[in-house]
Amino acid sequence: MSLQESGPSLAVVGVTGAVGQEFLSVLSDRDFPYRSIKMLASRRSAGKHLTFQGRDYLVEEIAPDSFDGVDIALFSAGGSISKEFGPIAVEKGGIVVDNSSAFRMDEGVPLVIPEVNPEAVAGIRAGSGKGALIANPNCSTIICLMAATPLHRHAKVVRMVVSTYQAASGAGAAAMEELVLQTREVLEGKPPTCNIFKQQYAFNLFSHNAPVMSNGYNEEEMKLVKETRKIWNDKDVKVTATCIRVPVMRAHAESVNLQFEKPLDEEKAKEILKKAPGVVVIDDRAANRFPTPLEVSNKDDVAVGRIRRDVSQDGHTGLDIFVCGDQIRKGAALNAVQIAEMLL
Amino acid sequence: MSLQESGPSLAVVGVTGAVGQEFLSVLSDRDFPYRSIKMLASRRSAGKHLTFQGRDYLVEEIAPDSFDGVDIALFSAGGSISKEFGPIAVEKGGIVVDNSSAFRMDEGVPLVIPEVNPEAVAGIRAGSGKGALIANPNCSTIICLMAATPLHRHAKVVRMVVSTYQAASGAGAAAMEELVLQTREVLEGKPPTCNIFKQQYAFNLFSHNAPVMSNGYNEEEMKLVKETRKIWNDKDVKVTATCIRVPVMRAHAESVNLQFEKPLDEEKAKEILKKAPGVVVIDDRAANRFPTPLEVSNKDDVAVGRIRRDVSQDGHTGLDIFVCGDQIRKGAALNAVQIAEMLL
Repeated sequence: MSLQESGPSLAVVGVTGAVGQEFLSVLSDRDFPYRSIKMLASRRSAGKHLTFQGRDYLVEEIAPDSFDGVDIALFSAGGSISKEFGPIAVEKGGIVVDNSSAFRMDEGVPLVIPEVNPEAVAGIRAGSGKGALIANPNCSTIICLMAATPLHRHAKVVRMVVSTYQAASGAGAAAMEELVLQTREVLEGKPPTCNIFKQQYAFNLFSHNAPVMSNGYNEEEMKLVKETRKIWNDKDVKVTATCIRVPVMRAHAESVNLQFEKPLDEEKAKEILKKAPGVVVIDDRAANRFPTPLEVSNKDDVAVGRIRRDVSQDGHTGLDIFVCGDQIRKGAALNAVQIAEMLL
Repeated sequence: MSLQESGPSLAVVGVTGAVGQEFLSVLSDRDFPYRSIKMLASRRSAGKHLTFQGRDYLVEEIAPDSFDGVDIALFSAGGSISKEFGPIAVEKGGIVVDNSSAFRMDEGVPLVIPEVNPEAVAGIRAGSGKGALIANPNCSTIICLMAATPLHRHAKVVRMVVSTYQAASGAGAAAMEELVLQTREVLEGKPPTCNIFKQQYAFNLFSHNAPVMSNGYNEEEMKLVKETRKIWNDKDVKVTATCIRVPVMRAHAESVNLQFEKPLDEEKAKEILKKAPGVVVIDDRAANRFPTPLEVSNKDDVAVGRIRRDVSQDGHTGLDIFVCGDQIRKGAALNAVQIAEMLL
């Protein structure tokens, strides 16, 4: 039971969505202390009732005065809600941990993975009356960097080639439902319902639905490129990515090819990853057992395996790895709550 | 109707399997001429009846004398059958086009993609009485090189980083059935049947089930590395691959990062690919329309899209592309029949 006088007052924005619901699970699982919590959503979801830690809450429509007296607001209601209400919450002295991409690349807004760059939130304290915006990175970036950073610290990554295998959850709860619905339809020989995605997703895969930019990359891919540079505070690191949606429910997988400045052999890499916080190594070559999205679903840790010297690079300055992480949890809600924990 | 006196005598080995059945479709679709055709399989499938081009055939059990008088034998019944009966067919003066990996890396055995290295079968003629073994490359290699080779010819690929999204069909008809069965079970809340694969495949993905070698690569990945070198006759080309099975039925997708010796901009690359035989370009950035496995299923052409300059490489010597191809068709049966066509 984490309702206590000394805790901060919280607000969860977008509480009825997939990530919003996971905020509540994670707060509860981690016994996050709070003296009050507001459940906020858009007009469409306002008026619903939620039970959280044995109490009944009314979901309120987000409004400027929702943020009066709020110390920490966890936002996951899309970029436009963040843009409209994030600055209001900050002005009222609250700290916004924002899961949207609205502010991620803004100068002065920390973009944080607690295991990677906790220093970025130094000096920001909940309840100090001094508001601040903190951005939660994109799910693919978080999952990739959880595994790549410990290796980067040891041997400095100079180039990274990422191919993703992204779950339905990244497009929200409705997308997960559509994947189930489509799968039933296809099995019954019916044409698939395409409301969320414009094409068949069941037993298929497709290039990520984010808009494609003039350089041919989609926005999801450029997030991996730009957010990595910001989080690592290394404007020279070279990253390319190809982001693909696969018919998996809630955990992403990523095939990551790494090029290092210094030599790093695979045994040393395994040793480093085994010690890395929030990372679990699953790498049993004899049993052909490696990370899968299903295995990390609803789990906190990011799993890494297929750790091997890249045969296409000379010497020992290249590695291939395969990473899986729960998109809703470490890719979104858990990471945001971990940021909030650093503010207490 | 392609039954004609002047055609070669054919044998299809493993005719009841997924690729075996596709051999028949492709022979029929392409009006392949033959004066006789033997339907061969292991004891388990022998005795079945098949209808092909309006005639009834008995499936016979493979035996040494099955190959008496056979001009071209299309094999797809696994490596051990190829090893046992391939040399017998050759000794009897037949030409074996083998879809297994048994002979691919053997010196003197041509490894052929007709659009890529037709010169490798120069001098081999069906019906000459001079037997020969020709190997069909692995499906992932064929699909990758169909797109990479036209670019390689123009600007020379020096390094290639491949991540695959492989369909159930690569593990055979039973694997496709298990994916459907598992999916039904998962949707009904039942535990999934795991006979072919040792873990849940429905709504999941996993590292390719091929055995993992001492260098940490699985055999499927090393096929991409080694077969590329042999097909391109370039022992220096650097390739790394991560091979993943995704819950898709019969077409593979591959994310391919290319590093060239010479500059090649994306517009030129598109132009080259649009003219490449057996390749179709699907690359509509505004509509976010790119190749999908579903779209290429049961099609001959390999589709390529997401053609863009790699932002992680300086200048214009790097490209990212995304390729999809039907695993059973161009990845196996079609390619083998195209090889057979070159022997007439």
